[in-house]
Amino acid sequence: MSDPLSATLSALADPTRRAILARLSLGDATVNELAEPFEISLPAVSRHLKVLESAGLISRGREAQWRPCKLKVQSLKAVDDWLSVYRRFWEESFDRMGAYIDELKHGEDDERAKKNRR
Amino acid sequence: MSDPLSATLSALADPTRRAILARLSLGDATVNELAEPFEISLPAVSRHLKVLESAGLISRGREAQWRPCKLKVQSLKAVDDWLSVYRRFWEESFDRMGAYIDELKHGEDDERAKKNRR
Repeated sequence: MSDPLSATLSALADPTRRAILARLSLGDATVNELAEPFEISLPAVSRHLKVLESAGLISRGREAQWRPCKLKVQSLKAVDDWLSVYRRFWEESFDRMGAYIDELKHGEDDERAKKNRR
Repeated sequence: MSDPLSATLSALADPTRRAILARLSLGDATVNELAEPFEISLPAVSRHLKVLESAGLISRGREAQWRPCKLKVQSLKAVDDWLSVYRRFWEESFDRMGAYIDELKHGEDDERAKKNRR
């Protein structure tokens, strides 16, 4: 029922699911390979994969036995696009900090110039 | 109980809450001002604000009557930082597309050069 962006954000709101995506960013993996580093059962991993798959964050191969999981980045890009509106807030404050540092530096240069003139 | 990033992502997984943040990105607003464009009750807006506040996405003023809401961008920046690991996927594919377009262009130039030589 939820919109695609809400479904993606909801799927990402879990540290195990984010860790699974991080693993898949290094390459495709089977459920067994994904379960290995986590201290949770295979069925629990399968449930997480189902959430990630229905949110469009991963796809799964057709082979019944292996069904390797693959990262799909389009949904992550949609989050990135949504965030871009807000990025100016931290980029602006970063720019302001840069301007302030420049100001301090120029102040120092001016002081030095004055001293040299004396 | 959930980690800060999960709490932020979970709070963002709702279109009304994202619309409230978009409104606050334009400036501080009271609950009444926030409720106006939405066809939902004041208590429903208040519940959304509580979720946003506990996820660190907004802060609220002290004045009991007005309590203006203010956007807090640090949590959004944390999502942006988390996403930065994945950004290379679409930036790389964008670069590849650019390289492909360049290749097509050069191909055309070569064709034109050949024709001129004839």
